[in-house]
Amino acid sequence: MKLNTNYANIGKNYLFAEIARRVEAYKAKNPGAKIVRLGIGDVSGPLAPAVIEAMHKAVDDEATKERFHGYGPEQGYAFLREKIAASDYVSRGIDMSADEIFVSDGAKSDCANFQELLSPEAKIAVADPVYPVYVDSNVMAGRGGAETGGRHDGIVYLECNRANGFTPGPDQAKGCDAVYLCFPNNPTGAVATRERLQEWVDWANATGALLLFDAAYESFVRTPGVPKSIYECEGARGCAVEFRSFSKTAGFTGTRCGFTVVPEGIAARAPDGTELSLRKMWSRRQTTMFNGASYISQRGAEAVYSPEGAAQCKAATDFYLENARLIKEALVSRGLPVCGGDDSPYLWVETGASGWDMFDRLLEEAQVVVTPGEGFGRAGAGFIRISSFNSRENTLEAIDRLGRTL
Amino acid sequence: MKLNTNYANIGKNYLFAEIARRVEAYKAKNPGAKIVRLGIGDVSGPLAPAVIEAMHKAVDDEATKERFHGYGPEQGYAFLREKIAASDYVSRGIDMSADEIFVSDGAKSDCANFQELLSPEAKIAVADPVYPVYVDSNVMAGRGGAETGGRHDGIVYLECNRANGFTPGPDQAKGCDAVYLCFPNNPTGAVATRERLQEWVDWANATGALLLFDAAYESFVRTPGVPKSIYECEGARGCAVEFRSFSKTAGFTGTRCGFTVVPEGIAARAPDGTELSLRKMWSRRQTTMFNGASYISQRGAEAVYSPEGAAQCKAATDFYLENARLIKEALVSRGLPVCGGDDSPYLWVETGASGWDMFDRLLEEAQVVVTPGEGFGRAGAGFIRISSFNSRENTLEAIDRLGRTL
Repeated sequence: MKLNTNYANIGKNYLFAEIARRVEAYKAKNPGAKIVRLGIGDVSGPLAPAVIEAMHKAVDDEATKERFHGYGPEQGYAFLREKIAASDYVSRGIDMSADEIFVSDGAKSDCANFQELLSPEAKIAVADPVYPVYVDSNVMAGRGGAETGGRHDGIVYLECNRANGFTPGPDQAKGCDAVYLCFPNNPTGAVATRERLQEWVDWANATGALLLFDAAYESFVRTPGVPKSIYECEGARGCAVEFRSFSKTAGFTGTRCGFTVVPEGIAARAPDGTELSLRKMWSRRQTTMFNGASYISQRGAEAVYSPEGAAQCKAATDFYLENARLIKEALVSRGLPVCGGDDSPYLWVETGASGWDMFDRLLEEAQVVVTPGEGFGRAGAGFIRISSFNSRENTLEAIDRLGRTL
Repeated sequence: MKLNTNYANIGKNYLFAEIARRVEAYKAKNPGAKIVRLGIGDVSGPLAPAVIEAMHKAVDDEATKERFHGYGPEQGYAFLREKIAASDYVSRGIDMSADEIFVSDGAKSDCANFQELLSPEAKIAVADPVYPVYVDSNVMAGRGGAETGGRHDGIVYLECNRANGFTPGPDQAKGCDAVYLCFPNNPTGAVATRERLQEWVDWANATGALLLFDAAYESFVRTPGVPKSIYECEGARGCAVEFRSFSKTAGFTGTRCGFTVVPEGIAARAPDGTELSLRKMWSRRQTTMFNGASYISQRGAEAVYSPEGAAQCKAATDFYLENARLIKEALVSRGLPVCGGDDSPYLWVETGASGWDMFDRLLEEAQVVVTPGEGFGRAGAGFIRISSFNSRENTLEAIDRLGRTL
């Protein structure tokens, strides 16, 4: 059987599956332990009342002959795409049409699938540390090559460290065809200034590279002037794709809905001279390989844009940000260097110890689950990621326990 | 920008997107026309009451802190996978474990994505006529090559015609690494005998090829002895993957849920000697590139296996099968050769005329939308596919109008 041998180049387990495995093993041995999970970036719910109401209505639609919705447009219903274009972009002064929005079952799928539009020979760059999906999807597709010391030969890694404020610049991406950027960042919680993003956009337009901008955490931005979208930069419509999610904005981690923006302006010429529109390619990919997000989830997502829905979702992100502030305060007061936690639900904490060792120690001594920094890349060694997605009670409990262990 | 130039090798539009475009254009010119759609294979709803009830409950779960479900297992919840393994397989005498079931947002995604596990050099075979997703996803991935006369150089086409009862045998698939089979078939409505499927399984086990078996329409099988699953054949657990969908079984075309079966038994050796388990590869693919189907949809799918849910869904497929019987009776009485419509919601009708011409003629003269046979491949020329997914009233109206035109 002729299989895709690139699978031999990736780690055995997806990072969060490995964390789940270790936690399950610990629970099996310690059935009474009260574990607090600050590991995976999953919201603690519940969904906003406006979303619940909209989804009940949508379920009722599916119970009637008249309002039944079967196959929808693969790109997503116009009712949702128009709200997204108007509320997330046009109302904020950004030129955007509903035809440039592609609704999906979540940003993870889109972030993972988008590389299919690139040539197998395309050179890609990712940050280090990085959300593993960008790397693994490219490795599976053959752009990674063998792994040496936690890095794949074929991929360019943009070192993120305290010196560059965890926001690398294009000087590290020479010769790359596509660059994944994520701000507010997962895992570091860092945000990029508009000036830094503009450097990337200018570089991409000058070199013909593509920016793949993951804005899944934009709804946590509170500091005035911090960009929520790559399209706040001049010229971004000519070189940047943006991934967005309702998972963190509105707690849709189990409901599954996100979207990708592919502006009409990205014109590209393949090496053989063929002119290909990136928007049309993504449209062809999605219409052929995907059948649209659940109608019920799309109606739920629509409600995120109602005045009530928006206020309820903002209250939830405010709540997580307050958790983040409390955790940050406690860790900083202990002298630990912490990045993130201001415009982001994540804190990137320098503990100095090896990530999986620290993971196991915190699990065993404090019954707190964090994410080991090296799970996000070599430059993550010595760090842990702490997520603020939890109840206040659990957060305070975790702060107390972490304080005794760290 | 280094793009995937294989996109230049596929037709501009996905078949059903092209049909939608032509229907919209006709409607714009003829705003009063009452169009009956027997084109796309979409159910006419509504969902079964048991499914509706389960989804309302699931939405309510998402409204509470205690029962909120965020990220679920990428492979699907055990509550659903266990029901699937028990009801669709074990109760029918087929060995199957819940760990071999992978729940997704639908069979289209899985059918399209599964080729990622194959080497770019793998030789694939498809039937002609064929559901376009198998072909297009492979062409985009580089296994198709250029198109000449409606066929891609790199793909092997298994001719389906009246002589072989529209069920080709492995004699046509020499040298192929993977073969897509679909029974009951889309588009021809043909079913395969157990003997025919056993020939395929024996051939695959003898040659080391992989069978990708699409059983999306199994719930329409009524004739005793006609296989509903490839695993009814001896040895299939060693060579076959099976795709299933709740779309046609339970009207989930807008709810989005399906599943893929990858048995533990498919052991494979890559060309470089690396041993790769296909089940583990698919697990790695799904955990990395997908985040699970909507919790609400999975709860809805679970209800399909309750006694009430099963009875309600069976009544719906019975209803469509009666539509199919009525259409078939009318066409046969007019002397048209018809395949399918017995254990399948589709009828494959030989009209002799070119597919798109016949499509346009039926749209303009009868305001009936069908699917042009050549949209499914060169061997589909001279045929149209008629779908029985509709109300009785519309079906009778379409029979009347088709009778006057054909």
